[in-house]
Amino acid sequence: MIAELISVGTEILLGNIVNTNANFLAQKCAKLGISNYFQVSVGDNEERLSDAIKTALSRSDIVILTGGLGPTKDDLTKEVVAKTLGRKLVDDPHTRNNIKEYFARLNGTAITENNWKQALIIDGSTTVDNHNGTAPGLIVKTEDGKIVILLPGPPNELVPMFQQDIYPFLNNLQPGLLYSEMVKICGIGESKAETMIRDLIDQQTNPTIAPYAKTGEVHLRVTASASSEEEGQKLVKPIVDELYRRFEKNIYTTDENENLEDYIIKLLAKHHLVLSTAESCTGGLLTGRLVNAPGTSQVLKEGFITYSNEAKQKYLGVNKKTLEQYGAVSEETASEMSKGLLNQTLCDISLAITGIAGPDGGSEEKPVGTIYMGCATHEKIWVKRFNFKGNRQKIRDYAVINGLDLLRRCILEEYGE
Amino acid sequence: MIAELISVGTEILLGNIVNTNANFLAQKCAKLGISNYFQVSVGDNEERLSDAIKTALSRSDIVILTGGLGPTKDDLTKEVVAKTLGRKLVDDPHTRNNIKEYFARLNGTAITENNWKQALIIDGSTTVDNHNGTAPGLIVKTEDGKIVILLPGPPNELVPMFQQDIYPFLNNLQPGLLYSEMVKICGIGESKAETMIRDLIDQQTNPTIAPYAKTGEVHLRVTASASSEEEGQKLVKPIVDELYRRFEKNIYTTDENENLEDYIIKLLAKHHLVLSTAESCTGGLLTGRLVNAPGTSQVLKEGFITYSNEAKQKYLGVNKKTLEQYGAVSEETASEMSKGLLNQTLCDISLAITGIAGPDGGSEEKPVGTIYMGCATHEKIWVKRFNFKGNRQKIRDYAVINGLDLLRRCILEEYGE
Repeated sequence: MIAELISVGTEILLGNIVNTNANFLAQKCAKLGISNYFQVSVGDNEERLSDAIKTALSRSDIVILTGGLGPTKDDLTKEVVAKTLGRKLVDDPHTRNNIKEYFARLNGTAITENNWKQALIIDGSTTVDNHNGTAPGLIVKTEDGKIVILLPGPPNELVPMFQQDIYPFLNNLQPGLLYSEMVKICGIGESKAETMIRDLIDQQTNPTIAPYAKTGEVHLRVTASASSEEEGQKLVKPIVDELYRRFEKNIYTTDENENLEDYIIKLLAKHHLVLSTAESCTGGLLTGRLVNAPGTSQVLKEGFITYSNEAKQKYLGVNKKTLEQYGAVSEETASEMSKGLLNQTLCDISLAITGIAGPDGGSEEKPVGTIYMGCATHEKIWVKRFNFKGNRQKIRDYAVINGLDLLRRCILEEYGE
Repeated sequence: MIAELISVGTEILLGNIVNTNANFLAQKCAKLGISNYFQVSVGDNEERLSDAIKTALSRSDIVILTGGLGPTKDDLTKEVVAKTLGRKLVDDPHTRNNIKEYFARLNGTAITENNWKQALIIDGSTTVDNHNGTAPGLIVKTEDGKIVILLPGPPNELVPMFQQDIYPFLNNLQPGLLYSEMVKICGIGESKAETMIRDLIDQQTNPTIAPYAKTGEVHLRVTASASSEEEGQKLVKPIVDELYRRFEKNIYTTDENENLEDYIIKLLAKHHLVLSTAESCTGGLLTGRLVNAPGTSQVLKEGFITYSNEAKQKYLGVNKKTLEQYGAVSEETASEMSKGLLNQTLCDISLAITGIAGPDGGSEEKPVGTIYMGCATHEKIWVKRFNFKGNRQKIRDYAVINGLDLLRRCILEEYGE
């Protein structure tokens, strides 16, 4: 099956917003095994939108439109789809009631007349309830067996609606099912990872392996087409096992919904460990990322941003002589920072980062991108040097993910899985 | 003039990457006054790419293609454009030399045979040097006066090439020029800001006003079409003055390249102020954002992540009774945090944040999204309560931008512009 994505909205064409909806839907289609050959963005314009719909219907089995379902005159996706398919718009009492209830929950907000425009649906379509807004999703089957799906544009409405109702609907259209696991790898570069599995990718038939690159991480989706979930698991298992043999401790999870900070917070909680952090060049970004994970308050009590040499001495007890002799960006300073942090906060494990994010401050011996990290427990101190390339932002992003990865490896080494 | 954007790459269709190139180019087209009616993403497939190019040429004056200029067999944008336009590929000695020099700079990296594929250009095209990679950009004029531009896909190659060579080229195609200024506003919601200038937008002819929403900020681009830069400035000035009358201190800059953290770091440096920060629910994100701005080390020496109540007492001297009586998320705690931070670090101005980012911890009186911020100088303490809506991530993002904005307003009030 082939799906085409049409994103509707002049704000996309003006560059006002980045089209993350197309990316989200493309990922989901890939996961469902539905091919996507074209993605089109078009403005709130009747003629051009109608052209885009006709073209999409001529070359795809499923057309997914996002955006243009709002209550204003500019929002015309539903109207144009209806006209293009030769259907009428009809009042839907169920949706009308949903809108009434939605506004009742937002106590105090009055329903304006144009909101009732959203209770009109395409004749013969199936509505999909919107629990985070007033525009329902619509599924329309055309006379020649094609499927047109209309979804609201705001990601906080689109994403839950897709996950809850559209994904299962699309999954049911297919013979059999697709079972997939996501193998998440960090601490190894994208091109190296791809080289390590080139032979597996070249041989692949069922299951397939698709690599996804993220900053400092590589995710590999292993997907099997099967007649049951059990059969899917059986097909996927040998490939995942093989990936574990090749990547070993570089794999941190196979749970699609777990990211690196979630994993670390869980691992700390499991071993009843309290973590403290001290950040220089990353200025709080690493701790800020950890705090994303729910449950952080049990394992993270405090952290320092020690941007100046004085702060490194005052709070972490770094020796003035060490700073003078080896510099703030050195193995010795990173080691003293992590050890001092451990003593100062009485935590179980500490992570300290010091480095040169640029644009200034680099030297021949320690160019911009040189970062030292120290991780200490009461038993041991690990210090690691990194040389990241790129601009200030990129160096800091890589430092954050590699700092988290160092922490992960130290916990595993000292305390186990 | 109408431009169409074609993004080439199967990685977009698989959802492997978010298409930020289309967003970048759409913004630049809008700035140039070039209309963009369609954006199309298509895979590395000859037939479908050729169809996309033909369709684009039939309805647009300028077609900008990104991606598919690499050295591998999969990269076929140049080949397909040549075939579609009935042109040959010819060897370009200038580009061949550039490739040789590029590899010489990466000492140690050998040129592989397929790299020379990148020295082939479309017959009759103009090459645009790529200073960050090996694929040159190409500009082709078709027989019927249309323009096809081929650009490399990696943003770190595309963006500088566009800024340096493509933007001026497109600007020269137009009669007269476009002069624009960017009025950046924070501390006021998007819909409120739009309401405040609805009349200006409705009346607009030349200059035009285009709003761009970012998390917690609204940017208004004021663009005049003029025969000279001087005339453009003259046309834009009364509108920018009017925006200052309406938004007053909510405007923090009209410099397109300056963001909020840059502005604050400059403002602190100008007044010779040293800042300290203490973050609870944002866990270092605000300080991490400030550290993005070059020059931070002069004005930011240290910060605390005081996630636990104990840390708030230990480092900031928050009274245990205050925490018990009013709670960690309260006006009183925020005030004591900022005052204690000032005393502890001997800085000139301090910013403290405490709040409930969720998903747990909310109550009727203080629901999830309740954030208190304190900003203290040796003269005065400001405390502000915010009620943000959304998930954990969104609440923290809004807290960061509004914390920066509070800091900005306090500096302005106490020390002036």
